[in-house]
Amino acid sequence: MAKSPAPYNIHDYDVPLTTVDSVLFTVHDEKLKVLLVQRGNAPFAGKWGLPGGFIEQGTDTDLEMCAIRKLKEKTGIAPLYIEQLLSQGGASRDPRGWSVTIVFYALVAHVNCEPHIDSVTDVQWREVSALSAKELAFDHGQIIQLAHERLQQKALYSIVPAYALPNEFTFTELQALHEVIIGTTLEKKSFRRRIEKAELLIDTGKSTVARGRPAKLYKVKPEGRAYRFVRNLES
Amino acid sequence: MAKSPAPYNIHDYDVPLTTVDSVLFTVHDEKLKVLLVQRGNAPFAGKWGLPGGFIEQGTDTDLEMCAIRKLKEKTGIAPLYIEQLLSQGGASRDPRGWSVTIVFYALVAHVNCEPHIDSVTDVQWREVSALSAKELAFDHGQIIQLAHERLQQKALYSIVPAYALPNEFTFTELQALHEVIIGTTLEKKSFRRRIEKAELLIDTGKSTVARGRPAKLYKVKPEGRAYRFVRNLES
Repeated sequence: MAKSPAPYNIHDYDVPLTTVDSVLFTVHDEKLKVLLVQRGNAPFAGKWGLPGGFIEQGTDTDLEMCAIRKLKEKTGIAPLYIEQLLSQGGASRDPRGWSVTIVFYALVAHVNCEPHIDSVTDVQWREVSALSAKELAFDHGQIIQLAHERLQQKALYSIVPAYALPNEFTFTELQALHEVIIGTTLEKKSFRRRIEKAELLIDTGKSTVARGRPAKLYKVKPEGRAYRFVRNLES
Repeated sequence: MAKSPAPYNIHDYDVPLTTVDSVLFTVHDEKLKVLLVQRGNAPFAGKWGLPGGFIEQGTDTDLEMCAIRKLKEKTGIAPLYIEQLLSQGGASRDPRGWSVTIVFYALVAHVNCEPHIDSVTDVQWREVSALSAKELAFDHGQIIQLAHERLQQKALYSIVPAYALPNEFTFTELQALHEVIIGTTLEKKSFRRRIEKAELLIDTGKSTVARGRPAKLYKVKPEGRAYRFVRNLES
């Protein structure tokens, strides 16, 4: 039998500063964008950083719930896709002392949080390819780059990027999204055939007009979320 | 210009308990094994858990250095391969309160740490497939399972598992290792051809005798560490 825990007071110890941050991506105007928040307080007051912050022990049951709560505060909605990216921690990343951040990356459709984000001045969508590390707080520039690399892997091996589109989308929109994330063009017939063969989408029966022609609207099947292509979509 | 940081005292805040733990794998007697440490103190005194613990802010420059320091204490050596797995955190995983653990997984050759581990009673290699979650502290049973799944992916798409072998090894030993981790047999000719084609190994010019026949000894090339097969080694 385990003995009952000895009295324990965390404030007797030299504890690191622990935060949860998220890299929230969307696609808009055919560009990959990331959500940034302007910092009101030191350290790095005035610089832009990732949405996140301290865990609220009475509110957050786990790390992911903490990340979702912070994103809801900034966007008005919970992201449709969220996954842990990595944790960064060390003696020199925060001037206040040894600090750890547990980082998530997440996806939302731009249209779903546009009204909320438009209503505030300290939250902005920023084009990923146009960011400079200098304007960013902490190591957030490096973290965004790592999140982008992970998203590129997702775009090569899954249809997870679809969670950055509105609920219903065309094949052309899905392909354009993968191309924006990967940074290269994909062969249209092959891309379509691979995704059709994997049966990851639901035909909604509806259609829209794109470039003067009708185009079918699709949704992601629930099992599309976890599906992983054995061979990447570029090959 | 950012303002200078306002006075900040972490003990004014409700901070989570933050630890670093590692899942250290090796292979021995054709079995995949994990390093466990018997806990001397509450919580879970007497149960077995992952090697790890609190960050030493004056000693550890980052999370990985903390993980390596803890592993060195238990095995006498630094692991040849280490990579972050994930972080687990929540209100209920530690009876002392809200806690976060940043988890690494790592590989060592059994022969390299055998003398050190044999000399202590509270550290043991345990066969992964024979573990029961009940004898383990915290959520360490679940974490070991997640690390095993990650290692299986590595065994399907890379030769990273080779870091659980001695520095020099035969093709047969490498294949047996991949088979133990994946849990299935691989086709010998195809496995050998795939790895030869990727040029990931150095022929040491030496050989050993295996099953009465001479067998060449190989080492992993530095670039073998990061190489990822586009198509998995099972296919």
